[in-house]
Amino acid sequence: MQINNRITELFNIKYPIIQGGMVWASGWKLASATSNEGGLGLIGAGSMKAELLKEHIQKCKAATDKPFGVNLPLFRGDIEDLIQVVIDEKVKIVFSSAGHPGKYIDKFKEHNMTVVHVVPSLKFAKKVEDSGCDAVVGEGTEAGGHNGLDEITTMSLIPQMADNLSIPVIAAGGIVDGRGILAALALGAEGVQMGTRFAVTKESGIHENYKQRVVEAKDNDTVLVLKKIGTVRMLKNSFSNAVIEAENSGAEKEKLMDLRGEKREMRGMFQGDLENGMMEAGQGSGLIKNIPSVKELFVQLISEYDSTLKKLTV
Amino acid sequence: MQINNRITELFNIKYPIIQGGMVWASGWKLASATSNEGGLGLIGAGSMKAELLKEHIQKCKAATDKPFGVNLPLFRGDIEDLIQVVIDEKVKIVFSSAGHPGKYIDKFKEHNMTVVHVVPSLKFAKKVEDSGCDAVVGEGTEAGGHNGLDEITTMSLIPQMADNLSIPVIAAGGIVDGRGILAALALGAEGVQMGTRFAVTKESGIHENYKQRVVEAKDNDTVLVLKKIGTVRMLKNSFSNAVIEAENSGAEKEKLMDLRGEKREMRGMFQGDLENGMMEAGQGSGLIKNIPSVKELFVQLISEYDSTLKKLTV
Repeated sequence: MQINNRITELFNIKYPIIQGGMVWASGWKLASATSNEGGLGLIGAGSMKAELLKEHIQKCKAATDKPFGVNLPLFRGDIEDLIQVVIDEKVKIVFSSAGHPGKYIDKFKEHNMTVVHVVPSLKFAKKVEDSGCDAVVGEGTEAGGHNGLDEITTMSLIPQMADNLSIPVIAAGGIVDGRGILAALALGAEGVQMGTRFAVTKESGIHENYKQRVVEAKDNDTVLVLKKIGTVRMLKNSFSNAVIEAENSGAEKEKLMDLRGEKREMRGMFQGDLENGMMEAGQGSGLIKNIPSVKELFVQLISEYDSTLKKLTV
Repeated sequence: MQINNRITELFNIKYPIIQGGMVWASGWKLASATSNEGGLGLIGAGSMKAELLKEHIQKCKAATDKPFGVNLPLFRGDIEDLIQVVIDEKVKIVFSSAGHPGKYIDKFKEHNMTVVHVVPSLKFAKKVEDSGCDAVVGEGTEAGGHNGLDEITTMSLIPQMADNLSIPVIAAGGIVDGRGILAALALGAEGVQMGTRFAVTKESGIHENYKQRVVEAKDNDTVLVLKKIGTVRMLKNSFSNAVIEAENSGAEKEKLMDLRGEKREMRGMFQGDLENGMMEAGQGSGLIKNIPSVKELFVQLISEYDSTLKKLTV
């Protein structure tokens, strides 16, 4: 995998492989391990308050001298505090999601930060480009966790983004091995962001029950639910079955919000409640068959990528 | 595009590009034009009675000396009549869908036919392999028309099929250009089946209103509906909006069957009723920007494939 393109240049990384910022999974251990292997590690601020984020950033700096970033979910009530931590700690790469980056872009740019935003459709991608972001992540409906209403798949979304944007496109959703990376680049992406695959590594902070459940998952073991109150892809379990039953009977927003309740993600991914927690995971789970270290994962990804490309060029 | 693999050998074709058998779109004109360009053309029997299918097969034979096949939807009440026509006319390639091929495979094999079945998940793919089929089409949820309940995308489905089957895998769903073909091969497919892209060609029998509507489609202009009575992906219009509204209110099977009514596909794709017809189309519609001849389309696909592969190997 010898790739020099706008994404490897933008982040000054060896491989255009980005570890998605994920709640409960991607603290300083996972992010620094990824950056040390030549990818881009992201600390997921989604499950952290400002103080904890600060601690993770400081530990990450101590563990790697390579570039890393922070993922910021913009809908958070305390987003200003999180942003202040990122600025104070001089992190130079931000991936934002779940909101519009336009409100904060000037602040980020004042501090010479590289800003990337995650979107599920071309319409939002254009807005992101217009707002001044440096790159965009196009996330297909295969992706785990929060997801777009339009349910556009990676295969359909990425070429349309590549055709219609000037800034580089990073593909996310359903990419878990070297074949997926090559496919994403063929579709026009210049990098990939992988979530679930990195959540299932030794350095990931997510509960061991989650990792084991993904390893056992089949192709149809995730489902996209809660479309009326904020679409999420998760592993099937008692909780998702209850949601589907309610949705099929026409349940309205209030009922679904009650059903989801509070801290359902924490219960699933941090506490390991396989049946009643929310286990956010991508559809590529069925392809994940081991729990490697990040170092082992990179060896695996690069070898798969190289052998697949070789096979196609014979 | 110089590809020699199990799919090009199985069908004795130059390019591993299969034109999907589609209602109203793929008669003898489209199938023979595809086969003449070095792909595999399929006559779609879904909108034909036995007599009409016979006529299309005979005209196709007169228009090409290359291999072509017939797509047979197995749920049809008169499927035995359709199969008899295919056997009598000595067509040697059958793609079956919407049912289980096990019931008919012995009959097909008695006549030395090559049999391929279309599936939306790994579980069905294994059944198809066990039944004795020669290859399998893995169809992602991006695909237009009838679709799997599990909503597995092409990106997630194809590598899992390649890893778990001995017979070759053909990818379908979201593939409309040379980038998509290369991506599918990277994921482990040995061929691609393209539907909507071939429906929007000069030789396609589908209504001109449909072709024009696809050319104008955006990335989020298709939707997956009717999940309780048989999932279909279609272009958004008044009909699909009515279905979505009913589904969101918890409508049961009977109500949805009433809403769909009879011959909704014919009204849309044959008669060109853009608002009240069912316009089956894949999510890749947003990438389709012209109405080429099949000859022009092949030039386009091969040039895109070659230039994409070249870019990845630099």
